[in-house]
Amino acid sequence: MSAQDLWQRYQDWLYYHEGLNFYVDISRMRFNDALVQTLRPKFEQAFQSMSALEAGEIANPDENRMVGHYWLRNPQLAPKPEFQQEIVQTLDQIEAFAQKIHTKEILPPQATQFTDILSIGIGGSALGPQFVAEALAPDVPPLNIHFFDNTDPAGIDRVLNRIGDRLASTLVIVISKSGGTPETRNGMIEAKKAFSSRGLEFSRQAIAITMPGSQMDKVAQSEGWLATFPMFDWVGGRTSELSAVGLLDAALQGIDIRAMLAGATEMDAATRIPDIKRNPAALLALAWYYAGNGKGEKDMVVLPYKDSLLLFSRYLQQLVMESLGKEKDLAGTTVYQGIAVYGNKGSTDQHAYVQQLREGVPNFFLTFIEVLRDRQGASVEVEAGVTAGDYLSGLLQGTRQALYENQRDSITVTIPEVTPKTVGALIALYERAVGLYAFLVNINAYHQPGVEAGKKAAAAILDLQKQVVRVLQQATAPLTIAELAEKAGAPAQSETIYKIVRHLHLNQRGIILHGNPGDPGSLKVSA
Amino acid sequence: MSAQDLWQRYQDWLYYHEGLNFYVDISRMRFNDALVQTLRPKFEQAFQSMSALEAGEIANPDENRMVGHYWLRNPQLAPKPEFQQEIVQTLDQIEAFAQKIHTKEILPPQATQFTDILSIGIGGSALGPQFVAEALAPDVPPLNIHFFDNTDPAGIDRVLNRIGDRLASTLVIVISKSGGTPETRNGMIEAKKAFSSRGLEFSRQAIAITMPGSQMDKVAQSEGWLATFPMFDWVGGRTSELSAVGLLDAALQGIDIRAMLAGATEMDAATRIPDIKRNPAALLALAWYYAGNGKGEKDMVVLPYKDSLLLFSRYLQQLVMESLGKEKDLAGTTVYQGIAVYGNKGSTDQHAYVQQLREGVPNFFLTFIEVLRDRQGASVEVEAGVTAGDYLSGLLQGTRQALYENQRDSITVTIPEVTPKTVGALIALYERAVGLYAFLVNINAYHQPGVEAGKKAAAAILDLQKQVVRVLQQATAPLTIAELAEKAGAPAQSETIYKIVRHLHLNQRGIILHGNPGDPGSLKVSA
Repeated sequence: MSAQDLWQRYQDWLYYHEGLNFYVDISRMRFNDALVQTLRPKFEQAFQSMSALEAGEIANPDENRMVGHYWLRNPQLAPKPEFQQEIVQTLDQIEAFAQKIHTKEILPPQATQFTDILSIGIGGSALGPQFVAEALAPDVPPLNIHFFDNTDPAGIDRVLNRIGDRLASTLVIVISKSGGTPETRNGMIEAKKAFSSRGLEFSRQAIAITMPGSQMDKVAQSEGWLATFPMFDWVGGRTSELSAVGLLDAALQGIDIRAMLAGATEMDAATRIPDIKRNPAALLALAWYYAGNGKGEKDMVVLPYKDSLLLFSRYLQQLVMESLGKEKDLAGTTVYQGIAVYGNKGSTDQHAYVQQLREGVPNFFLTFIEVLRDRQGASVEVEAGVTAGDYLSGLLQGTRQALYENQRDSITVTIPEVTPKTVGALIALYERAVGLYAFLVNINAYHQPGVEAGKKAAAAILDLQKQVVRVLQQATAPLTIAELAEKAGAPAQSETIYKIVRHLHLNQRGIILHGNPGDPGSLKVSA
Repeated sequence: MSAQDLWQRYQDWLYYHEGLNFYVDISRMRFNDALVQTLRPKFEQAFQSMSALEAGEIANPDENRMVGHYWLRNPQLAPKPEFQQEIVQTLDQIEAFAQKIHTKEILPPQATQFTDILSIGIGGSALGPQFVAEALAPDVPPLNIHFFDNTDPAGIDRVLNRIGDRLASTLVIVISKSGGTPETRNGMIEAKKAFSSRGLEFSRQAIAITMPGSQMDKVAQSEGWLATFPMFDWVGGRTSELSAVGLLDAALQGIDIRAMLAGATEMDAATRIPDIKRNPAALLALAWYYAGNGKGEKDMVVLPYKDSLLLFSRYLQQLVMESLGKEKDLAGTTVYQGIAVYGNKGSTDQHAYVQQLREGVPNFFLTFIEVLRDRQGASVEVEAGVTAGDYLSGLLQGTRQALYENQRDSITVTIPEVTPKTVGALIALYERAVGLYAFLVNINAYHQPGVEAGKKAAAAILDLQKQVVRVLQQATAPLTIAELAEKAGAPAQSETIYKIVRHLHLNQRGIILHGNPGDPGSLKVSA
């Protein structure tokens, strides 16, 4: 295609949202009109299904749940008055609470003001808050945020060491929908221990974000925590950034959460339009479908050319992969769906792996996120007439061109700057694109059966650990791994048992391994 | 395969390094002995080629360069006495310099000691230092490190705002092999401006790491910077972590760089053994070859189950993808090689995308990085007999099992803890695995032609920008994009010109766009 034809194609397919000054360009995806025609009926169906979902249809059949994250930014759409009320009230409570923290109306017992936040959560209860903190928190925020987003003891210690004496002025926010996520529960227990070892009262500095009536809600009530905010049954973890999960952390950091919601509301309206060309989420879904042949055959590489959007791809990994990565479609057919997502930021990643993108395995399509405004204020020139921001812009354009010339496709999403409003719009855009794409390929975007299975597998291993320790404590002589497996009633699980005892041995947990570590079968174990 | 057979396969293939207490397990890659036999001659050849490379053969033919990163940790291997001397001297200089900073023998002009480091570099000059800082820096290091790793003005402003008044006590380290990397040059200019606007003397706090005689070396000499450390012609950016590039930042943060080198030296020796089963790097190369059919057909998902190793996958993205992502093999045949790499950390990512890994597109293999020691000191129990670290370990084992049961293969690399020695060993292991794999598939792992092409494309766009601005400044009336392209002598480049003027317009650079932004063809532009 000639440069002139490409320029025409660019203009033909360019989506522009005036209110948001937001562009989506899929002209460098080499689909043709025949594909669009073929997909049109599927899109019609997808628009209708999406509309039914927004009206409160049970969109997540195996969990028998409604899917209502869109209602969070437009409560009037919620199908029940009590939902509307809960949304509005929660938002007011979040703002009121953040204000009381900022104005020092609420104080920690042993310090003159709250200075830090320790946000404990994993998956959807961490990725959104982390992305938004990196994108939008002021350089010097009213409260500095830290995260426990795992169950790694050394990682927990590092965060606590960095907080140090400021633990006395740290607000702890424990986020778990069910209250039963083990990593989050473990983080809470570790935090409680740190508080008590410093003579601090955890409950006076702790906040729960959870479903009313959950295990964690009960703990928070009975221990008299500082506050509790609700998670709603009809909001899934990966679409919870614009619920209390994301908004409380954001408000406390001084981020304008009403603007985030407003950006999402505008984008929601735009992505409701049942017309592919006039709907930016439909354009993304179309491009994804084309790229991977509706089967995820190409990875989605996401490169925001803006440092503050570094965590967007990590946020999208969950939103896209957990929603779309499914074994069965809605008809029960085995389909092994999904789209792999990765990326960090441009132009940095050009020095990491654009070599492979340009020349290597063509197993991906790229999404550039372009931000038009370079910075607040004027820039120094790095050469006559050229700024650092011109370089960033030039590197994006050059890479897009060069990749296209090598038959590597790309989408470009352009926003004027990184603000609460545009970030809200980005979140809403991708939520809808994922939903539409899932309808196109006929899968349930709103459950995650594989995650449950993983939790069960881990629980089984911890049960086995307890059993192994019991056997060793009762044993009168060192046992081989095979003997230990036999006595533990798990003769087929020698390898797992070996891993368990190796881990306990290294951590001075009263289990000793004897022999050559390079030859596991010959090892003996004793308590 | 039965659990018992798997346990036997585990033991048969388990690699264990006694000195490092380091394990590599490829038993969950479902290759068979026939593949190993088939690859044996290729491995023989690869071992020989690697040996010749270490002896100083020109391993990078199109750049006519030796490849000597292995010499950095064993200078006696360097083929020329002057190389040996340079390595040893540089290392001594780094240690002596870091000590002088720590003991306050070297002081900033306007502060009582150095408190921070601003490390300016991109690609290989940032990814290694960032990975190592995250993995190994003490929780409260003697100097806090910050990075300019891009040419994003807002990103630069954020770092400078966070450093704030401590700029007076910040050591600036500018890292560029050629001295000509635009992003790094831009970062240096921005840093200089920040210094002068605060009345600080940049040269008294600046250090260059560059090739002797480079443009940057000349600037550092003529401006009288605090110190200069050499980069060597025979060390590529992505294998430069154990040169001055990585070691100066590390030493300043109080990391034991001799231990990093010692770990790498031990691993180098282990990965020199010309026997697949006894060589951990050969085992990785074998597993990668099997997974992707020698063509990169599967992505490499890297999940360290340890927070401090979060950036390992980002480091590996460059090492693996820039080395292996090549259009042509050494015979000049078009091959589109490479292996895509992504991942963050476990168990966090289990809540992000293990759903897709378990159930979705089977387009990947996993590498678990397991760390045996949970933390320094004892752990609180989160349940009777169970710690947070047991959960982390159980989640890793459970995920590995569950994925295998779903025909998803994995490698497990196990280290006792995250120390300078094990991190040095990890770096050396993957450097060698990439080198061996490249020989197996007959490509040059040591050049990056696509990166150069990208730089040229960006430079062309900046030239066009200058031309466009000249035309607009001389124009007597607003021009359409097409007219502007015509007058700029670039009639085929309307789209690029549109992007250029849109960017200048948004940044108050004296260029105005008139009309409907949603219809680029109709816009008019004036200066």
